[in-house]
Amino acid sequence: MKAYVFHGPGRSAWEDVKEPVIQDATDVIVRVSAVTICGTDLHILKGNVPEVRPETVLGHEAVGEVVETGSEVHSVQAGDRVLVSCISACGRCSYCRVGTYGQCRGGGGWLLGHTLHGTQAEYVRVPFADLSVHPLPSAVRDQDAVLLADIFPTAYEVGVLNGTVRPGDTVVVVGAGPVGLAAIATSRLFSPARIVAVDLAPSRLAAARTFGADAKALQGEGPEQLVADLTDGLGADVVIEAVGVPESFEMCVRMVRPGGHVANIGVHGKPATLHLEELWSKNVTLTTGLVDTRTTPALLRMLAEGRLPTAPMVTHAFSLGQMAEAYDTFARAGETDALKVVLTA
Amino acid sequence: MKAYVFHGPGRSAWEDVKEPVIQDATDVIVRVSAVTICGTDLHILKGNVPEVRPETVLGHEAVGEVVETGSEVHSVQAGDRVLVSCISACGRCSYCRVGTYGQCRGGGGWLLGHTLHGTQAEYVRVPFADLSVHPLPSAVRDQDAVLLADIFPTAYEVGVLNGTVRPGDTVVVVGAGPVGLAAIATSRLFSPARIVAVDLAPSRLAAARTFGADAKALQGEGPEQLVADLTDGLGADVVIEAVGVPESFEMCVRMVRPGGHVANIGVHGKPATLHLEELWSKNVTLTTGLVDTRTTPALLRMLAEGRLPTAPMVTHAFSLGQMAEAYDTFARAGETDALKVVLTA
Amino acid sequence: MKAYVFHGPGRSAWEDVKEPVIQDATDVIVRVSAVTICGTDLHILKGNVPEVRPETVLGHEAVGEVVETGSEVHSVQAGDRVLVSCISACGRCSYCRVGTYGQCRGGGGWLLGHTLHGTQAEYVRVPFADLSVHPLPSAVRDQDAVLLADIFPTAYEVGVLNGTVRPGDTVVVVGAGPVGLAAIATSRLFSPARIVAVDLAPSRLAAARTFGADAKALQGEGPEQLVADLTDGLGADVVIEAVGVPESFEMCVRMVRPGGHVANIGVHGKPATLHLEELWSKNVTLTTGLVDTRTTPALLRMLAEGRLPTAPMVTHAFSLGQMAEAYDTFARAGETDALKVVLTA
Amino acid sequence: MKAYVFHGPGRSAWEDVKEPVIQDATDVIVRVSAVTICGTDLHILKGNVPEVRPETVLGHEAVGEVVETGSEVHSVQAGDRVLVSCISACGRCSYCRVGTYGQCRGGGGWLLGHTLHGTQAEYVRVPFADLSVHPLPSAVRDQDAVLLADIFPTAYEVGVLNGTVRPGDTVVVVGAGPVGLAAIATSRLFSPARIVAVDLAPSRLAAARTFGADAKALQGEGPEQLVADLTDGLGADVVIEAVGVPESFEMCVRMVRPGGHVANIGVHGKPATLHLEELWSKNVTLTTGLVDTRTTPALLRMLAEGRLPTAPMVTHAFSLGQMAEAYDTFARAGETDALKVVLTA
Repeated sequence: MKAYVFHGPGRSAWEDVKEPVIQDATDVIVRVSAVTICGTDLHILKGNVPEVRPETVLGHEAVGEVVETGSEVHSVQAGDRVLVSCISACGRCSYCRVGTYGQCRGGGGWLLGHTLHGTQAEYVRVPFADLSVHPLPSAVRDQDAVLLADIFPTAYEVGVLNGTVRPGDTVVVVGAGPVGLAAIATSRLFSPARIVAVDLAPSRLAAARTFGADAKALQGEGPEQLVADLTDGLGADVVIEAVGVPESFEMCVRMVRPGGHVANIGVHGKPATLHLEELWSKNVTLTTGLVDTRTTPALLRMLAEGRLPTAPMVTHAFSLGQMAEAYDTFARAGETDALKVVLTA
Repeated sequence: MKAYVFHGPGRSAWEDVKEPVIQDATDVIVRVSAVTICGTDLHILKGNVPEVRPETVLGHEAVGEVVETGSEVHSVQAGDRVLVSCISACGRCSYCRVGTYGQCRGGGGWLLGHTLHGTQAEYVRVPFADLSVHPLPSAVRDQDAVLLADIFPTAYEVGVLNGTVRPGDTVVVVGAGPVGLAAIATSRLFSPARIVAVDLAPSRLAAARTFGADAKALQGEGPEQLVADLTDGLGADVVIEAVGVPESFEMCVRMVRPGGHVANIGVHGKPATLHLEELWSKNVTLTTGLVDTRTTPALLRMLAEGRLPTAPMVTHAFSLGQMAEAYDTFARAGETDALKVVLTA
Repeated sequence: MKAYVFHGPGRSAWEDVKEPVIQDATDVIVRVSAVTICGTDLHILKGNVPEVRPETVLGHEAVGEVVETGSEVHSVQAGDRVLVSCISACGRCSYCRVGTYGQCRGGGGWLLGHTLHGTQAEYVRVPFADLSVHPLPSAVRDQDAVLLADIFPTAYEVGVLNGTVRPGDTVVVVGAGPVGLAAIATSRLFSPARIVAVDLAPSRLAAARTFGADAKALQGEGPEQLVADLTDGLGADVVIEAVGVPESFEMCVRMVRPGGHVANIGVHGKPATLHLEELWSKNVTLTTGLVDTRTTPALLRMLAEGRLPTAPMVTHAFSLGQMAEAYDTFARAGETDALKVVLTA
Repeated sequence: MKAYVFHGPGRSAWEDVKEPVIQDATDVIVRVSAVTICGTDLHILKGNVPEVRPETVLGHEAVGEVVETGSEVHSVQAGDRVLVSCISACGRCSYCRVGTYGQCRGGGGWLLGHTLHGTQAEYVRVPFADLSVHPLPSAVRDQDAVLLADIFPTAYEVGVLNGTVRPGDTVVVVGAGPVGLAAIATSRLFSPARIVAVDLAPSRLAAARTFGADAKALQGEGPEQLVADLTDGLGADVVIEAVGVPESFEMCVRMVRPGGHVANIGVHGKPATLHLEELWSKNVTLTTGLVDTRTTPALLRMLAEGRLPTAPMVTHAFSLGQMAEAYDTFARAGETDALKVVLTA
C-alpha cells in the first residue's frame, strides 16, 4: 500500500510500504477514507520529536472502515465506519480507569504516527481498538468527523474543560490556529459573555470571528490593554494558550484575573518564566494536559446534532496521493491561509 | 497604649502610641489578649514589603475582647471574645460574594499590619468586623485559637483544599515551618495514605512527624528519589510548596505525578522557571493563592472538637511587653527551634 | 401612594396605602418602574400561603430607581436604576457566606410580598439592600431586567445548575410555563444535544420551541416513550420539574437515566411517592431548592450581551394602575396565552 | 466441588456442584480462600430477589487465588492472590468509561450470586476479570480484604462520597449494621466534627462507637431531637440511610439541614413518601446508588496502610464447610451480635 513515511529530519515521502496486519488481539485494521495533518506532524518532520524513528508512517487522525479485527475486539466489527482517535487506551491501568487515556500506563497513549505507524496511509493498524476507535453515525461526513480525532477534543478537554469556561465569562484564546479556533468554538458551548481572540496574523483573527470570537487583538497591538478594558481592569476569567512559546504563555498569565484559570494547550519546546512574585497571592489555577479523547463520544453527538462548526475549519481538500502537496499547503499556512487540510481516499 | 511599631527597615519598637478609635461604622475595637508573629512580619522588618509604611503597627493575628463596636456591626458586641482574622472582607464585592475574601475589591483583603495598624498592640481597630472577627467558643484557649487567624486557614485553603488532597493520596509538603506543619496537620483531615515532609532542617522534620508526616526527607538528600520509590516512580498526587523560593517550587513540580496537583503556599520574591517543555503533556494543575479565611468557622468547630493539633505548634510563650524578645526568638528559629511564639496580655 | 393589597383569600385591590420609609439602616426605598406577577402571587391570593397576612402589599419582582438609602447602604445610591431581587440577603449568616441567600438565617430570604410589603406598588422598601438590589446597565430595558428578579435565576440555579446540564446532554423540562421556559432558555447556555419540553397545553409547547426546545410532547401523549426513543431506552441525563404536582414529579423520576439528575423547581403543596424500590440501585440525584439569586450578576451580564431570550417571555403589557386587569390576564393564561405580564409606571 | 446452592425460597445447601470453567476469554477461575455473607444473600434466600434463579450458587464477595485465566485477561495471572469484587465491569460501555461500573451496559454489573454462580464455593468463575478482580498486597489479610468486595466500597461510594462528607460536618448514619458501620468508618476519613449513629439495637450502637461514632441514638428515642440539639436546630450536613425501609428514609429526610445531603444506601422493597411540600424550598440533595467499586484500589491502599478498621467487623469465623451454620449465625444477628461472618478454606 501507499503511506507517508518519515525518513529523518526534512525527508519524507508518499511511497510503498507493507500493509499492516493484526499483531495483538486488541488490534483492528482500518482502511483510511480521510486523514488530516497536524501541527505536530510538521514538528516531527523538522526532527523536533526525537522519539519518532525514521521509517515511521506519520499521522494520528483518520476516518475509515474497519476491515479486520483482532480476537479481543468487542466494540466494532469489520464494515464499521469509525473515527480513529489520536489516543489509544488500554482501559485497564489506573489512568484509563478514570478516563485519563492520554496518560495510559498500559501501553497506550499517543502511539499512532509517534511510536507506531500512523494514519497517513491507505491502511492503519489501531491497537486497543475497543477504546480507541469510535463508530460514526451515518449522518456525519468524513471531513467533519476527522477533526474530532485530535483538535476538537484537545481544544475542548485541555482548553475549555480544564479552564472551566462558564456562562457569562470573559475568555481569551491566544493563538488562532486550528486548535485555538476549536477552543473558541467549544468555549461557545458554555455561553461565555465574550471570547477575545489574539494572534499575530490578521487572517487568523478573521477566522476567529467565524468560529465565534467576539473581539480580537493582534499580538503586539495591545491585547492586554483590550482585556483590561473589557473587564474593568480585572483580567479574564479564563485564558487559553494555543501557541506553545514562552512569550505567549507569559502573556496569558498576565491577562488572567485573580481567581481565574490559565489552560495551556500549546506544545512547548522551551521553559517559560513563572512570575511567582506576582502570582503567589493571586489565586490563579494553571493547567497543562495531553488530550484524553474521553469526550469524543459527546463531541460526536454534538457534531451529529449540528452544534460544532467543523465545516469552515477545512480550507483545502486533497486526495491521499497528494500528501506531499497537502503538507506543503499546510506548512505554508501563512501564505495559503490553510487551517486544516483534509485528504480523502 | 503600647504597640509594636515599624520604623523602617531594621528598626522597630514596643512603644507608646495612640489608642485606636472607631473610624468607620463597620469597625470594632478589640483589646488584645493573645498575638503571634508571622514570617511575613520578619519580611516587613527587613523592608521587603514596601507597601508597609513606617510608623505602622505590625501584626495580623490576634485573639481578644471586643470593647467597642461601630453602628453597622451586627455580628458581635462589646464583651465578646473573638478571633481577629488576618483578612478583612467587605462582604459586598464580587469576590466576597463567592467567599474569596483575600481578593476583596471593596476595601478589604490583608489590611492589619499591612496598610492599617495591626494586632501587635494592646488594642486594635478591625474594619469590616462582621466578616472579619469570629466569636470564640469558651472551650477554646487563646493560644490555640490565635493560630487560626492565619496559618491554619492558609495551610488548609491554599495548600490542602487547592491541592485537593483525597483519601489514599500520597502528599508531599515541602517546607516544615509553621505553615508547612499546619498543611501536614490539615492534610490528615482527608486521610491520605501517606504524607512526606521535606525540609533542610532535621529538627523541623522531627516536628513534621509530630504533626502527622509518615515519611520525611532532607532537601538535598534525595526527596525526589524517595517520592519516586514510594509511588512506583509515578510521583505524588499532591505537592504543597511552603517555602517560597524558586528551587523549592521547581522541585515540587518535578515531584508531582501526571494528573496531580502542585499547590503553592510560599510567599515568593522571585520568578521560577516553569519547564513547560516537560509539563505541557503532563496534566498538571498548579495553584496559587492568598488565604480567604472562609474556612475559619469550620476550623474553629474542628478546634473545639479537639481535631486540630494546635498545642505542639506553640513553642515559646511571652507577655505582650516582651515583644522584642519574642521577635528575636522567632527570627532565630534555626537556633531556638521556635515554631510559633505566642504573646499574651 | 397606590399599591396592590392582599385582603385575605380572594380579595385584593390596587388602593391607597402609606408610602414606605427607611426602617433599618440597610434599607433602600425604590420607586418602581416595572413589576411583574408570579404564579406564587396567585397562590397567595387563593389563600394557599398562610404566612402572608392580610393587608400585605404583594409582589417580589421589580425594576426601579433608588430614591432613598439607609445609612449602612454602600453598594447603591439615590438615583441608581436597580433590579430588586426576590431574595433579600443579610450577607453575614453561614448560608449567605456561601451564597445560599435563599436560606438566609439573618433575617433575609423571601421577604417582599411575603412577610414584608412587596413590589406591586409605586414605592417599595427593600431590606439588606447591599446584596438585594443590583445596579442595571443602561443598555438593559426594564421589561427584560424585571424577568431576572425571579424566574430566570430560579430556572437557572434550581433547574439548570442543580441539574448540572452539560454539552451533549438530553434534557427534559416538564412544565412549559414561564419558569419552565426560562429553564429551557438557560439550559441552552450549556449546549445540550437536545431539550424535550413536556406540557399539557399545545400553546405552551409552541412557546417552548421559541425558547429553544428541540422536541416536545404533550403530557398524556407519551413523553416517556419519546424520551426513551431519543435515548436508546436509557432515559434523560437531566429532568427538570417545573410544575409542582406529584404526578409531574413522579413522571420526571421515571424519565431520568441511571446516573442522571432530577432537579425540582416546582412549588409543591402535596407529598409525592418516591419509588425507592426501583431507585435505590439507579444512581439518581434529586435536588430541590429555593432560588438564591447568586447568579443574578452573571445573568445581567448575559442579558446585556444579548444572550437571554427575555423579549418573547413578555406577552402582555400594562400600566401599574391596571394591576387588577393584569392579574386577571395572568390568572387566565389558559385562555389568554399569557406568559409574563409586565406593568410599568 | 462444594458450593452453597439456592434451591428456591427457604431452601439452600452446601453441596456438590460442577467446577466452573473458563467460558469467555475475559474470565478467570479463582480458588476461594475467604468469603462472607451479605444481607442481600438473606433477601435472596427469602425469595425477595426473583431474578436469582434456583440452582444458583450464592455469594458476591471473596478473596482467593487465580488458578486459570482466559486468553483476553491481562491484569492478573494464575497464582495471583486477588479480591473478587461484587461488581463486574466490561470496561467499554458508556457507564464503565466513567467508572460507573455498577450500571455497566456491556454485560457486567452485579452478576456473581445474582445472574451467575457466585463466590460461596470452592471455585468461582469471574467474568470481565481485568476490571473485576484486584491483586492484593501481601501485607493484607484475607479476612480484612474480603470486606472490600462489597460493604466498604458500598458505604464509601454510595454513602460517604455521594453524601459529600466534609471536615467539620455533622454526619448522621441511620442503621448500624455492617454497611452502616462501614459508612461510619469511612466518613471518618473526611474528619467530620461528629458522627451520630441511629439504630434500634443497643448492641449495634455500641459497635458504632467502636467504628468512630461520637454520639448515638436509639431509633424511637428521639434521634431527631438529638440532631437538632447538636446543630442549633439546623439539621445534619449529611444523613446516610443504611436500613432500607420507608420509615428510616423519611426520618433521614427530616434530619437533614437546608442545603444538606441525604445519601441512600439501603436496599428498599417499598416506596417512601417524599414530602415535597416541605422539601421544595429546602435545597436538599438526595442520592441513590449501587456500588461501582471504582474506589476499591484506593481502599485497598488505605487498608494496607492500616487506615480502615476492618478487624472489629468480623465477629464470627467459620470454615467453608460450615456455610449453613454461618448463614444461621448471620441471620440471627439480633441474638448473636454478628456483624460480618467470614468463612475460610
